[in-house]
Amino acid sequence: MFVDLRSDTVTLPTPEMREAMYRAEVGDDVYGEDPTINRLQEMAAEITGKEAALFVPTGTMGNAIAILTHAGRGQSVIVGSESHIYHYEAGGASSLGGAPMYVVPTLSSGMLDLERLRDGIAGQEDVHVAPTGLICVENTHNRCGGTVLTVEQLESIASITHEHSIPLHMDGARIFNAAVALRIPVSELVRPVDSLMFCLSKGLSAPVGSMLVGSKEFIGRAMRTRKMLGGGMRQAGFIAAAGIVALENMVARLAEDHARCKRLAQGLMDMPQIEVNLDTVMTNMVIFRVLDTNQQPLNSEETERFLLAAREQGILMGQLGSGRVRAVTHYGIEDDHISATLHGIRQALRDITVA
Amino acid sequence: MFVDLRSDTVTLPTPEMREAMYRAEVGDDVYGEDPTINRLQEMAAEITGKEAALFVPTGTMGNAIAILTHAGRGQSVIVGSESHIYHYEAGGASSLGGAPMYVVPTLSSGMLDLERLRDGIAGQEDVHVAPTGLICVENTHNRCGGTVLTVEQLESIASITHEHSIPLHMDGARIFNAAVALRIPVSELVRPVDSLMFCLSKGLSAPVGSMLVGSKEFIGRAMRTRKMLGGGMRQAGFIAAAGIVALENMVARLAEDHARCKRLAQGLMDMPQIEVNLDTVMTNMVIFRVLDTNQQPLNSEETERFLLAAREQGILMGQLGSGRVRAVTHYGIEDDHISATLHGIRQALRDITVA
Amino acid sequence: MFVDLRSDTVTLPTPEMREAMYRAEVGDDVYGEDPTINRLQEMAAEITGKEAALFVPTGTMGNAIAILTHAGRGQSVIVGSESHIYHYEAGGASSLGGAPMYVVPTLSSGMLDLERLRDGIAGQEDVHVAPTGLICVENTHNRCGGTVLTVEQLESIASITHEHSIPLHMDGARIFNAAVALRIPVSELVRPVDSLMFCLSKGLSAPVGSMLVGSKEFIGRAMRTRKMLGGGMRQAGFIAAAGIVALENMVARLAEDHARCKRLAQGLMDMPQIEVNLDTVMTNMVIFRVLDTNQQPLNSEETERFLLAAREQGILMGQLGSGRVRAVTHYGIEDDHISATLHGIRQALRDITVA
Amino acid sequence: MFVDLRSDTVTLPTPEMREAMYRAEVGDDVYGEDPTINRLQEMAAEITGKEAALFVPTGTMGNAIAILTHAGRGQSVIVGSESHIYHYEAGGASSLGGAPMYVVPTLSSGMLDLERLRDGIAGQEDVHVAPTGLICVENTHNRCGGTVLTVEQLESIASITHEHSIPLHMDGARIFNAAVALRIPVSELVRPVDSLMFCLSKGLSAPVGSMLVGSKEFIGRAMRTRKMLGGGMRQAGFIAAAGIVALENMVARLAEDHARCKRLAQGLMDMPQIEVNLDTVMTNMVIFRVLDTNQQPLNSEETERFLLAAREQGILMGQLGSGRVRAVTHYGIEDDHISATLHGIRQALRDITVA
Repeated sequence: MFVDLRSDTVTLPTPEMREAMYRAEVGDDVYGEDPTINRLQEMAAEITGKEAALFVPTGTMGNAIAILTHAGRGQSVIVGSESHIYHYEAGGASSLGGAPMYVVPTLSSGMLDLERLRDGIAGQEDVHVAPTGLICVENTHNRCGGTVLTVEQLESIASITHEHSIPLHMDGARIFNAAVALRIPVSELVRPVDSLMFCLSKGLSAPVGSMLVGSKEFIGRAMRTRKMLGGGMRQAGFIAAAGIVALENMVARLAEDHARCKRLAQGLMDMPQIEVNLDTVMTNMVIFRVLDTNQQPLNSEETERFLLAAREQGILMGQLGSGRVRAVTHYGIEDDHISATLHGIRQALRDITVA
Repeated sequence: MFVDLRSDTVTLPTPEMREAMYRAEVGDDVYGEDPTINRLQEMAAEITGKEAALFVPTGTMGNAIAILTHAGRGQSVIVGSESHIYHYEAGGASSLGGAPMYVVPTLSSGMLDLERLRDGIAGQEDVHVAPTGLICVENTHNRCGGTVLTVEQLESIASITHEHSIPLHMDGARIFNAAVALRIPVSELVRPVDSLMFCLSKGLSAPVGSMLVGSKEFIGRAMRTRKMLGGGMRQAGFIAAAGIVALENMVARLAEDHARCKRLAQGLMDMPQIEVNLDTVMTNMVIFRVLDTNQQPLNSEETERFLLAAREQGILMGQLGSGRVRAVTHYGIEDDHISATLHGIRQALRDITVA
Repeated sequence: MFVDLRSDTVTLPTPEMREAMYRAEVGDDVYGEDPTINRLQEMAAEITGKEAALFVPTGTMGNAIAILTHAGRGQSVIVGSESHIYHYEAGGASSLGGAPMYVVPTLSSGMLDLERLRDGIAGQEDVHVAPTGLICVENTHNRCGGTVLTVEQLESIASITHEHSIPLHMDGARIFNAAVALRIPVSELVRPVDSLMFCLSKGLSAPVGSMLVGSKEFIGRAMRTRKMLGGGMRQAGFIAAAGIVALENMVARLAEDHARCKRLAQGLMDMPQIEVNLDTVMTNMVIFRVLDTNQQPLNSEETERFLLAAREQGILMGQLGSGRVRAVTHYGIEDDHISATLHGIRQALRDITVA
Repeated sequence: MFVDLRSDTVTLPTPEMREAMYRAEVGDDVYGEDPTINRLQEMAAEITGKEAALFVPTGTMGNAIAILTHAGRGQSVIVGSESHIYHYEAGGASSLGGAPMYVVPTLSSGMLDLERLRDGIAGQEDVHVAPTGLICVENTHNRCGGTVLTVEQLESIASITHEHSIPLHMDGARIFNAAVALRIPVSELVRPVDSLMFCLSKGLSAPVGSMLVGSKEFIGRAMRTRKMLGGGMRQAGFIAAAGIVALENMVARLAEDHARCKRLAQGLMDMPQIEVNLDTVMTNMVIFRVLDTNQQPLNSEETERFLLAAREQGILMGQLGSGRVRAVTHYGIEDDHISATLHGIRQALRDITVA
């Protein structure tokens, strides 16, 4: 048995979720007749304080639907240089919908560089330049280590986008982690954005599914985009049932994941061969670098060897590119897993040094 | 309680499926670690006699993946004039992947017009014309009333496509209905095609999910297209578990749906106000027209009134465009529902005549 | 020296055009500073009775710009089954802009089947179906043999499209041939359409260039699409200068091409081995079939042999697919070329019979 | 009369070009029958040392054709953060062909950051990431002020791209400026790249037209992409004739533009209110900033006022974004224009200070 810290996407559903799925009342959702999906969609709209919500099979599809529904053909989409949409879903919205991405620097806090954002917005005046059709933010920010954007930060972005009448979409795959970290309701946190995608899987532990929320008019058009992408499922109430449990039972406990993650990060701080910035450990992720005996960061191949050594200690973690290691806490990670992880990493460091 | 003959998409899962979902062993399928999905994919490949299979959330996505994986940018896709892909998924592959459709007449049997198919295939010689990248067939054929293409018919199409080295994809949403009607194994029926999409929902009654099958190389590339479209789900083993039950328990019983559909069609034959072609009632669908007192077919609005009158009798059916009515039998339709349906239609005919 | 009847695209410019090009005053048209292009655009708008016009390098680009400017992402474009856009430019608008084509039968007159057009128009109500964003007509109609649509025919189409608030675009590559044949001003003929593309090359003999015309608002957006497609040229006033000569001097003389084409068609009527429908010879094209000694039409390969035999007689014509031959009169074809052509065809028929 | 330093796109053709156009022998290039275009294409291939060449109406289309021909659907294109393709043509290749852009930093020399390039290349291993299908460089580099990449720099990029079997395309709109500055033949300079677009307009002063060069196989496929984009013109030999003159007569004289540009830059150096980096003035462009009395750079609006003041002195220049000013020398700029420009700028600086 491994301690699997690769991602919170590996979370397994709770017994309550299995029960809920077993008993779920379902119908044909393409006809709008699945009562469980309808209920989940109402819950999602209410929790986020938006008018309407749509159940989608994945977060990637939720973001792609948002982009294709907001931005017309020939309009560009501004994304952060470290954003998940740009790095891990680029094939999607650009390939499929022909939406060119315009990249603005992501600061290490996960925040967009506001001056560059302002410079990057294009209007209709110059035919050489694709006009901006959408701006995207990410909260919590994955590649920055699960960092949280505050309401104030989001409002400073929104004030720019709204000045230009450009919609603002949030990739909020882990928005509940952000809200729990800030100790505010999600609805308050996402008020500045026009649309939001969040995942029922990941930290909330539902097996499948994400939600797209926004205005009624937007969600109406998004339904058509979902059908076009092949996301219009039939008796999906089974998986929606688990999603309802996720929203009801699994939000508050994210604080535990954050506490464990902080403990893990603090433990890593004590190891001279590990470089970690505690300031960015705000939710359920810690990103760190491993140093060699000359205090130089390991390169990609050396890091790969470190990860294999950790794996032999029963600890699974992931490499984020250019030698950075990521560990993610979640529903499947208990207190003693943290101790085991710290022990395993210490042993792995020793093993690779010897070799 | 309605007798719901609108479509076999309304089927509810069996108790065995709920059990299987409840007990399903799952994992993160994006890492290839969901044992239930892996097992379903192996089953699907074996049953269809192809090398590999991929689980996808919907049939529309399965077809879109096939088109985008087979046909490169700038290549056209030949589809039948009555095909589901052309009529009900056109937004998809053309909008998303820029694959232009080239339309060849669908005969009333569901077969493609072979001469027009031959004429329609374009090579590289003329820069004015998009070269053909894929040819699609549909079996059973939805808009033709669930008609079945035989192995011989498929081979006559395949001999043309292979002569030009163009892949042949089958939209086999209801391929098991075709195989059961022909009393041959699915693997024999789909041997002439390079790839196949079939649904676990619809007649097989699983709540969600379809399979794409083909060569290992093709499925490898299809995985990437699935991710791009947002179809890469995580712990989808829950729904896959129901799919396994569908393949194990629900195929043979499709013969019952076919028998009931024939009974329904024969009952309709006896009504002077109904026009129905018994030759096309080969599986679980019957398409008919309603005539007025002058033996003229009702127009769309009049047909809508007939459908409302039937609904008041507790019978749900669908309109297929231009005054044609479709009724579909499935797992939720028993013998007495057929009698009730015939009775309800008779009453509805009386009601609209009086009015 | 050949008599080149393959197409009117082979026309060479007149001496006046060379003079006009030599003396052309030019500027940077991307800045809107080319006076000759500005003048041509004003002329084109005025002649067609539309608000504004845009110079584009080719007719294919003009149509592609119209489609991508009128129809948004995910909207479909209704085209005739024999239209040039569908057959010879399909790679374009669908591949590039993801605009799915919906095909309505073209009648032998070049007219759209109105009932099928009405059935084919889709609104927003069904998420399975791409909503119609544009309808296209063609006048004169190339694959129907240069047939002409009258104002009344166009109005009957426009009344349907406008009822649904869908724009109507005309591929009027040879609209001046139509207007001359009908003896009415072009502005009267194109009044029912929202936008029009016409060619300065082809019958009007300019070397390069087409015009897109429509409302000011439409042309404003079209400029952006033109830039995106790479059609924003710099000192293109040189070719525009030839276009001005084309509009001033070359329109009235199209009647000569039509008269010669009719003479050619009548001569073909007298040959027992030729099948030709004189009713469709309304402008500068004649399409005919060659029969064998059993009065059966030649197949494609046999037709190819006939074309080679004609070529040996100095006569160039084209094959239109499935054994149909097309001959086109134009500025380079004089009276004695017609006699020579009839003689050459007679000889070619003899040659292939002997062989 | 203005001294127009906005861009070298404003160049007017030489008398020899008008003569050559007047006398040009032309034909239908879609049939490959235009002798002047054929000759230009042979010249372009020979001069650049590549197998084949294609005449295209604009540089934007030439780059779009290269991208769509090299990179298949779903593949990404690596571009520099300051590249013309990314900033001024993004609407094109991404919107039309769905090619997602992946952005690597452009250094101030116009060079790509090699380490980030290496990191940015993606293979087939991760389905989350669009695999790299093409890498683009720009030489001379527009937004960096016309800087030149040397053969050594290009080879260091090519060694990376070829290691991954990814093609390398050069946006060489002004490649002859680079070759002249380096005093080497163009063929030597472009040896490391697989394809190249260069402009006959701009510094070479032809009115319209660019060339795409590469392998025979590539150019064969590019012809189809050109047709799809609407770039297949007919008797375009007229503009090709001017292009031939451009290649024969206008290359060597680019050295004059460079010398005048350097003189202009040196003159600007002497003005305390101007900030300019002489190191980047390698060809025919100079980019500078204007400072206020506190030696702070003007913002965009203030710079706009400076440009208007210069315009009143008869000097036209362009703003490049965020307060940078660009001046470009070309065929229309003589020695005394440089003196007049320096005088006009001095006066403009005085005028805005007073105001």
